[in-house]
This record gives sequence, C-alpha cells and structure tokens, in this order.
Amino acid sequence: MIRARENTTFLPGVPIPESIAITNDRAEAVRNADLIVLATPSRVVRETAQALMQEAATHLEAADAIVIGSKGLEPVTQLRMSQVLEQVLSPNIHPNVVVLTGPSHAEEVARRIPTAVVAASARGAVAEVVQEVFSTEWFRVYTNDDVVGVEIAAALKNVVAIAAGICDGLGFGDSTKGALLTRGLVEIARLGEALGARASTFAGLAGMGDLIATAMSRHSRNRRLGEAIGKGMKLEEALAATKMVVEGVGTAHAAVDLARAHQVELPIAEQVRAILYENKSATMAIRELLTRDLKAEPRALTRR
Amino acid sequence: MIRARENTTFLPGVPIPESIAITNDRAEAVRNADLIVLATPSRVVRETAQALMQEAATHLEAADAIVIGSKGLEPVTQLRMSQVLEQVLSPNIHPNVVVLTGPSHAEEVARRIPTAVVAASARGAVAEVVQEVFSTEWFRVYTNDDVVGVEIAAALKNVVAIAAGICDGLGFGDSTKGALLTRGLVEIARLGEALGARASTFAGLAGMGDLIATAMSRHSRNRRLGEAIGKGMKLEEALAATKMVVEGVGTAHAAVDLARAHQVELPIAEQVRAILYENKSATMAIRELLTRDLKAEPRALTRR
Repeated sequence: MIRARENTTFLPGVPIPESIAITNDRAEAVRNADLIVLATPSRVVRETAQALMQEAATHLEAADAIVIGSKGLEPVTQLRMSQVLEQVLSPNIHPNVVVLTGPSHAEEVARRIPTAVVAASARGAVAEVVQEVFSTEWFRVYTNDDVVGVEIAAALKNVVAIAAGICDGLGFGDSTKGALLTRGLVEIARLGEALGARASTFAGLAGMGDLIATAMSRHSRNRRLGEAIGKGMKLEEALAATKMVVEGVGTAHAAVDLARAHQVELPIAEQVRAILYENKSATMAIRELLTRDLKAEPRALTRR
Repeated sequence: MIRARENTTFLPGVPIPESIAITNDRAEAVRNADLIVLATPSRVVRETAQALMQEAATHLEAADAIVIGSKGLEPVTQLRMSQVLEQVLSPNIHPNVVVLTGPSHAEEVARRIPTAVVAASARGAVAEVVQEVFSTEWFRVYTNDDVVGVEIAAALKNVVAIAAGICDGLGFGDSTKGALLTRGLVEIARLGEALGARASTFAGLAGMGDLIATAMSRHSRNRRLGEAIGKGMKLEEALAATKMVVEGVGTAHAAVDLARAHQVELPIAEQVRAILYENKSATMAIRELLTRDLKAEPRALTRR
C-alpha cells in the first residue's frame, strides 16, 4: 500500500490521498492523534487494543475520541466491541470510545456515493466530535446514545445477511428476502432490548438501514458467503474462496449463545448457526423458518 | 389469454392452470363465487366495483370475502382502496372486504418462490377465511386487523420505491438506499399513525417487508420508473416505455395532499412529486433530502 498508494487487494481502483500517511507501526500510527480509528476484524480488536495500551497509552489518553469501526461479538466472551475495549483500555480512556456504524460499503464510500451513518456514545459531546470530523456533503453522521443497540444491530445484521445470501443461493426472490429481513430485524431488536437497547434504534440507520444495505447488496461478503452455501458449498470452501473476514460466521455462533443466556429466541440465527456449524441442509433450515404455524402478525415490534 | 392459456404480455412463461376459467364478463366472473378478488389498477377500482354492484350485487352479497389486491390512493379523493369500496359496496357487503398485501412480486409467486403476505380486516374471522384459502407451503398468509396501516404502507411504499430507483439512476449505491428506505419507512409510519394506524404494522411484512421487496427489486415497476427518471428521462417518456401501471406516480401526488391535510411532513414523497410533476432536477431533490442539518437520530419510531 505504501508503494502503490492503493489497497490493490480489497479496494482496487481507489487511490489513497497523499494526505494519508501509511505505516505498519502501531505506536507511530497513533502518535499525537486527535482521533484514533480502530477498524480491524472483530476477533483481533482485543489484541490490537492491548498492544496499543502497552506501546502508546499516553497517546490514547490524549486523543479526543477512539472510534471503533469493527463489528461483531467476540467468540468466546460474546462481548460487543466497545465492551472488549472497556476491559482493555484504562478507565480514563474508555469514555472516549465512539461506535461508528450504519449502512456504508467501503466500495461506495470511497467513491463518494451518498451515505448516512451513526456515531454512538453515551457521552453526547464525544459523539458530536466524531460527527463533525467525519461529516461531508456525501457522508452524513447522525449521533445516537444507544451504544448497546447500535452494536447489537451491527453484529447481528451480518448473520441475517448470511441467511439472505442462502435464500439467493437457493434461487429464492426479493419477496422472500423482504419477509426474511422483516423477521430478522424483529429478532435482532428482541435480543437488543433484552440487553437494554432502545427499540427505536433498530428502526434507524444502524438497524434497518444497515440490514438492508448488507443483506441486499452485491458488496456484502456475508451475503455472498451465504449465497455460496445456498448453492451447496461447504463453509470451509466458501471461506477459502474469499480473502476477507466474514464477520457473521463467528457472530452467528456467539449470538445464539448470548441469546440463550438471556432466554431470547433467535430463529434465523439458530438456523444459520446450524447450517454453518452442524452441516444442516440449507433447504431444510429455510423451510423450517418459512413454514411456521400461521397466525396473526405481532402487534408490538418485538415479542419475547 | 383464453387462447394462449398464458398472460404473454405481463407474465410470459407461466402457464395458467386449467382449473382457472378466464372471462371478460364481470358478472360471469363472480357468479356463485365463495371468494372474489379485485386486482385492477387502483384508478379503476371504483368503476369496477360500481359495475359489479349493478350487474351482480347478489353474488357479491353471497361471497364469504371480497379480497382487494389493488394498492394506491385514489387521485382526487385520496381515499384508500377499502374506503373506495366502502362508498360503493352496500353496507352488508363491505364488512367482508379483506386487504391482501405484502412483499410479493407476481413473477416470483407464480414460480412458487417462498413468499409471506398479510390479510387485513377489522373482522378477524373473514381475514382467517382468506388466510386459509390462499395459504400453501410456499405462500404464507398472516392476519392483521390494522387495515389503515397496511393500506397506507402498500400505497406509499411505491413512492419510496420511485425515489430508490432515482438513486439507482443517479449511480448511487446500496448504502444510499439503506438510508433512504429507513427514512422512507419513518415517513410512511408518520402518515399512517396520523390516520389511526398502529406503529407496529410498519415494522411488519406489509410495511418494512414490502418496502424492501419493492424498492430493491428488478421486478418493481416503480423502482424501474424512478431509475429511468434518475438517468434523465422525462415522466411521459418513462411511462410510455412501460405498458404497465406505475401506481406510485398517482400516489405520490395524492399522498402529499393527504399529508398536508393532516399536517404531516413527507420529505421523500414531496421531492418525488416535485420531480414527477414540477420538473425538478432529480440531483437537486436527492441532494436536498441527504444534506439536511446534522442531528441525533429520532428516539421514537415516528415524529410529527
């Protein structure tokens, strides 16, 4: 990337502006930074933050905000990314953590396609710092104080996107996916509310918006992985076919564990986990989801 | 269709089962029918129902249910389809009207692709008749008693789908549409609630589900019309290029009138109407939608 001034593997064709310095030295990357963005795959957020604390704690302390762009649940602990940071960062740094999430494919943002996202923090002032720094005419940032809600939405939408991809692989249609996403958002909100999130967050950009952008897009790695599995590929083959991290795979497992601990039902995530980890037939799993007993639609957004 | 046993214009490649009799005689079509389905373009629902009342009122009276599949607002009156039927059908027939709606492209349903829809009526028993008659393993029908909500959702989603198509025509991405649909559902729910609908209906199949299936699909005529306009075509040209009725065009006009009468703001529908009827530049309209003042996300699903 230093030589090519371009990420030729993951974002070919998009030159990196000269104003951006590239380094593989963590301490160098955060030195004297006003704002620090962590955007690694979710499974290495803990070790990355730990290393930064060892190598550059004073620079983390001096920063106005630490932005976390990673999405997922940590496999064994089932912790959200801001919870992982809470365990690793010192108590005076952690309040500056801001979650940046919402419907935003890198391939589109890099080409200045209009995008709207959410900066979430319990501290409004630090979320507003991020809002101001990141906002342009084509990239709009809205604030939200529901950190639990936006993180659960960001993590779980990848699981529903895998299910949507499976529907694509099986040859189903947009009608099927409209129904699937509707139920998917209900189950994401159900888990979120059990963990203390606000229902309205799931109707917003981080909830419905990101779910649509992820589950309906050719850019989504999670949807593409699901499509390969729907066409009959095994998980290992499908993962080997992509060089990128598919966050929904680990999150499907962790989300079901988390939901069981809170006695919440996640029918879609349960089926995705069974397909990915227990070799369950995709056709069978989707049929089970679709042919539940006929009844009335729920009157409330979520039902436990 | 009688000769070809196929609708070669609108649904080519799908043979019509021999068990279906085809006629252009309205009275013949409803004679001794247990269940009658009206699925004309919305602008001819009134005249069709009036003609049926003149020619075959006793058969309408004897039917267990009258299913209305047409979606839209009547241009001058701004009435929902079930309200039009309320004016036309006699008081003993109208309670048997059931609204059938939800994410369902004919091209997909005809090929038995898994689909889930809603049968809505204030009378649970008559909605359940429709649920039972229409349900198969691949076509699931859920009941809902919020007739106002499902009809407003069905009509307005076509307007948001035109806006989504305009985004496609302008070369925007799935991130843009994720944000647009999120705001679109908020404004549909805002109008619906002002008219007495239940908020949860908009989070269900008839709301979010149908909005996604319509605004994200190549099958949607409303989205395709928007795409042509986003690419610079005039409304007349774009309408001439399709042989089918594009319900969102009339509904955009009627919805804004209806919303103004109830002092509800519909920013997306306002811009779509201005693009369609006032020759406003699509680029300008979308920019106005996207570059509103930065602020926090709303805490409630809808805000007046």
